[in-house]
Amino acid sequence: MDFDLNDIHTLTRELKQSNESKIVMLVADGLGGLPLQPGGKTELETARTPNLDALARRGVQGGTIPVVPGISPGSGPGHLALFGYDPLKYQIGRGALEATGIEFELRDGDVAARCNFCTLDPKGNISDRRAGRISSEESAPLATGLNRVSIPGIEIFVQPVKEHRFVVVFRGPGLGGQVDDTDPQATGVPPLAPQPRDTASKKTAEVAAEFIRQATQLLKGEKKANGLTMRGFAAKPALPSYGDVYGLRAAAIAVYPMYKGLARLVGMKIVGKATTIDEQVDVLRQNWQDFDFFFLHYKYTDSTGEDGNFVAKVAEIEKLDAAVARIAELSPTVLIVTGDHSTPSLLKSHSWHPVPTLLVSDCCRPDGLDKFGESSSIRGGLGIFPAKYLMTLAMANANRLAKFGA
Amino acid sequence: MDFDLNDIHTLTRELKQSNESKIVMLVADGLGGLPLQPGGKTELETARTPNLDALARRGVQGGTIPVVPGISPGSGPGHLALFGYDPLKYQIGRGALEATGIEFELRDGDVAARCNFCTLDPKGNISDRRAGRISSEESAPLATGLNRVSIPGIEIFVQPVKEHRFVVVFRGPGLGGQVDDTDPQATGVPPLAPQPRDTASKKTAEVAAEFIRQATQLLKGEKKANGLTMRGFAAKPALPSYGDVYGLRAAAIAVYPMYKGLARLVGMKIVGKATTIDEQVDVLRQNWQDFDFFFLHYKYTDSTGEDGNFVAKVAEIEKLDAAVARIAELSPTVLIVTGDHSTPSLLKSHSWHPVPTLLVSDCCRPDGLDKFGESSSIRGGLGIFPAKYLMTLAMANANRLAKFGA
Repeated sequence: MDFDLNDIHTLTRELKQSNESKIVMLVADGLGGLPLQPGGKTELETARTPNLDALARRGVQGGTIPVVPGISPGSGPGHLALFGYDPLKYQIGRGALEATGIEFELRDGDVAARCNFCTLDPKGNISDRRAGRISSEESAPLATGLNRVSIPGIEIFVQPVKEHRFVVVFRGPGLGGQVDDTDPQATGVPPLAPQPRDTASKKTAEVAAEFIRQATQLLKGEKKANGLTMRGFAAKPALPSYGDVYGLRAAAIAVYPMYKGLARLVGMKIVGKATTIDEQVDVLRQNWQDFDFFFLHYKYTDSTGEDGNFVAKVAEIEKLDAAVARIAELSPTVLIVTGDHSTPSLLKSHSWHPVPTLLVSDCCRPDGLDKFGESSSIRGGLGIFPAKYLMTLAMANANRLAKFGA
Repeated sequence: MDFDLNDIHTLTRELKQSNESKIVMLVADGLGGLPLQPGGKTELETARTPNLDALARRGVQGGTIPVVPGISPGSGPGHLALFGYDPLKYQIGRGALEATGIEFELRDGDVAARCNFCTLDPKGNISDRRAGRISSEESAPLATGLNRVSIPGIEIFVQPVKEHRFVVVFRGPGLGGQVDDTDPQATGVPPLAPQPRDTASKKTAEVAAEFIRQATQLLKGEKKANGLTMRGFAAKPALPSYGDVYGLRAAAIAVYPMYKGLARLVGMKIVGKATTIDEQVDVLRQNWQDFDFFFLHYKYTDSTGEDGNFVAKVAEIEKLDAAVARIAELSPTVLIVTGDHSTPSLLKSHSWHPVPTLLVSDCCRPDGLDKFGESSSIRGGLGIFPAKYLMTLAMANANRLAKFGA
C-alpha cells in the first residue's frame, strides 16, 4: 500500500469497518467568536446553553484549525476540512463553487464559470462592469435566454444567480478547467479573449469564445446587459466520496443551497426540505435508520456574525442549543458540535481562530470541562488540532476504524 | 541539504552532537486508559503513583498522538513513532513483524512471510484453513522439518510460531517483498499460486512456489497439516539506525520478543535477559556506562488493558511506579515515561487517545503539574503532539542537538 502522507484517506480506506453506529455532525456555521473587549465573553460563552453544557460534561472539547493557523477559510475549505478532506489538497474553483451554491449538480468533466453581465459601448469597450447593477428581475430572463446558445458536441447550462451575476456550465468531452478570466478589471477596454492556461483547456477556451460570441449576439440591443465577462473557470473537483473513504452512508440536512452542494460533492445524499433547525431535526429523525452519518448545517450563527450583531448571534446560539437537546434524544453513537470557521461579530467576517468543537461518545475520554465555549475548548482533551482530523476521530469513536499495523 | 519535509531525521542527522548524557525512555505499553464512567478516573489516575507524581513535579507532561488523531496503532507503528520514525512513512509488513516477534534477526534483503498449516482434501482443495487448530506441540516439529526444503542460491529459515502458524524467511539476492497472499480465505478451493505485485518480486514468487511444492511433498501423509498457505510477504523494512540518525548508542531492555525485535530494527542492541521489571532495572544499571540511550519496555499495562481488567492494570501501574524510583536513582539526564498507545480496559483494545507522556530533565521547563495522568497530560507543557517528535525533545533536553540555522 503506497501512502500519501498528506492524505488521511489512504488510511481510512484501508481501516474502515462497518457497524450499526450513528454519527451526527452539527455544524454551526461561523460558530467561534470573540469578546467585544478583553476579558469579556464570546457570543457562545454569553449564550445560555444548558444542553450544550450538559453534553460538555460527558464529552471532550478541542479547538479546530480549519486550514492552518492564521488562515480564514471560506465555506468551501471550511466544510471540506470538517468532512476530512485536506482543504489545501482539495480546492474547489470559484466557478464550481458558484454552481454548487445554486444547487447545480456538477458532473465529472463539467467546467463552470462565474459570469457577469456588463455594458459595452458602441466600440465594444466595457463602460460598466456590472451592467448598471441590473436587478435580478431584469437579468434572470436574460441569463436563462442564453441557454439558446448552441455549440456542437457541448451541452451548455446557463443559470441566473443574482443581479448581474450568472453561471455557465459547459459539458462535453475534453474540457479542462484552466482558462483565464475575460474580465479586464477595467472600463474603457474590451473584454479579454478566453486564454487557456494548459493544453487540456484549449478546447474550453474555444468553447467559451464561441459562447461569448453567440451570447453577445443574443444580447444585442439590451441597454444595460449587452455583454458579458467570464471568471473563475473551474472543473468539478475530484473529491472521493464518503462511501469510498469512510464506508459511510451519509446524509446532509441543510437549508441553504451552498451547503447542500458542498455535501453533494463528497457524495452525501441531500435529504428533506427543512427550512428551520426544528424541521432539520425532524428530517434527522425521519431518516435515522437509513444513514450512518448525518451532517446538519445551521446557518444563522454565521450570518449574524457577518452582520456584526453580537446579540443576535447569541440568540441564534440559544436556538441551536434547544435543537441540540432534541438531537441528543436520538442517542447518536458520536455527536459532534462544531463550526466550519469562526465568524466573530467584532470582525463581521470569517476568521482564523480555533473553532470550539465538542465530541461526545461513550469512549471519548471526557476532559472534565462543564461549559462549551472558546475558553473551554482550548483546554480540552482534543487539544488544538487541524479540523481535517475530526472525521478520523468521529470514526474512531464510532469503532469504525480497525487498528493500523500489527 | 535536501529536506524531506516528512522526515525529521534529515534534521537530526545534521544537528546531532555527542556528550556524556544518558536518556532513558520507559515505555509502559498501552499506558493510556479511560474512566469506566464519565467523571471517573482512568487506570493511571486511580493508581497510587508517588514516584511518578514526584517526577511530574520536576518534569513536563504532554499527550502524544501515536499516528494521527483517531488512528489506533499496533505495536509496530506505536513504537516506531516513539523511536522518532514516522509510522506512516516507515511501515513494517506483516511477515517482517511476525519474524521480528519471534526474534528472528532479519537482514537487509530478507523477505518474510506468515504461514499457516492447512488441511488439503484428496483433490488438493483446502478443507480446513487452520489445519484443525493443530496444537503447537504437533505443529512445531513439522514447521522445523520444513527447513529441509532446498532451493539453489536461496537460504530458507522456517520457524514455528504457535498452533497452525509459522514463519518463513527467504534470504538471497534479488528478492522483492511484494507478493500476494496464497490463502484464498475460503475452503473448497486450492491455495492460490504466489503472484508478484512488481517485477522486483518475480523471483520471490518463484521461490515461494518452489518452497510450497517441496513443503507439500514433505507434509504428505500428515492428517491435519498436509498443506500450507503464505500471507503478508514483506521485505525487511529499511529503517535508518539510531546511531545514524541520532548518534546514540542505544540499548533495549525488553522481556517480550516483539519489542526486542522492533528495537533491533532501528539498530538498538538487546541487552540482558530480564524477565521482570526489577530485573530490567538491574540490567539498566549494569549497562549504564556502555550506552547513551535506553529503551525499557513494560508489557503488562497493555495486556491487562486488553483483558479488560481495570483493577489489574492499576496494580501493574503501581508496580511500574516502584521501578520508576529505582530508575530515577540513576539520575538520567533525560527520563521519559510514556506508552506506545492507549489500551483502555473499557475498550479491551488499543485506542487512539493521546498517551500520557512525562519528560524530566534539568532544562525541561516544568509545567507545575503535580500528578501524572491523562487529565494532567493534556494540560501539560508539551501540549498534545505527534509521538514522532518525542525523540527530538529527548535529544534537545540532553543537549544533543545543535542549533538549526545561524
